Amino acid sequence: MSVEVNVVSAYWGAAEERDWDAYGALLAEDVVYEAPQSRERVRGRSAYVRFNREGFPGEWHVQIIKIVGGDRSGASWISLSYADGTVQPGLSFFEIDERDMITRITDFWPETYELPASRAHLVERY
Amino acid sequence: MSVEVNVVSAYWGAAEERDWDAYGALLAEDVVYEAPQSRERVRGRSAYVRFNREGFPGEWHVQIIKIVGGDRSGASWISLSYADGTVQPGLSFFEIDERDMITRITDFWPETYELPASRAHLVERY
Repeated sequence: MSVEVNVVSAYWGAAEERDWDAYGALLAEDVVYEAPQSRERVRGRSAYVRFNREGFPGEWHVQIIKIVGGDRSGASWISLSYADGTVQPGLSFFEIDERDMITRITDFWPETYELPASRAHLVERY
Repeated sequence: MSVEVNVVSAYWGAAEERDWDAYGALLAEDVVYEAPQSRERVRGRSAYVRFNREGFPGEWHVQIIKIVGGDRSGASWISLSYADGTVQPGLSFFEIDERDMITRITDFWPETYELPASRAHLVERY
């Protein structure tokens, strides 16, 4: 496994464990987080740990579907499951410095949508 | 650049050019495409080229924001812009075989959402 895959895997492992010390230890002091869908930004390790620790209470669990890494970048596709049984995919992109610290995180949380009728003849459903 | 980054870059370049021969040449004969949000699936190179050629008419342009690649996998974050000025992010994951052909594509098209009030004190907006 590449170092980038290891770092992203450790990031999600620490989140699943709510091990915020381990989580913070993966982040550069000046890490920047952005969520383009809601135009949220969080700057700095302590603010970003707090965002995660306090911003998402309740029961949720992380299942890693895929991690891609190389050349100081990483990407992950996870499935988040909640106590009410809902499941949501999450897609995250990471930049990782020479000390193997995460310097930038951008994530996306897509929702389900209806298949457009205009292309229904071109696909199968699953 | 890794071979995986090159393959994903060529994939989006061919899409932008509507060069469906070049696009198809990047795909394994038994490529499988899935869109988890709408549970669409397309199997096989010719069906998948047709899906793209016929399923998304009109003017759209691809801007590559980020490509990550390694260990026979790739991930891309693109921005699609439409003639009406709307812009949408697209996140795609790729599996690539030993012949550098794409065997699996999974993509996600997230929409904007409102910042939840519950975490508004933990972020800035941009």
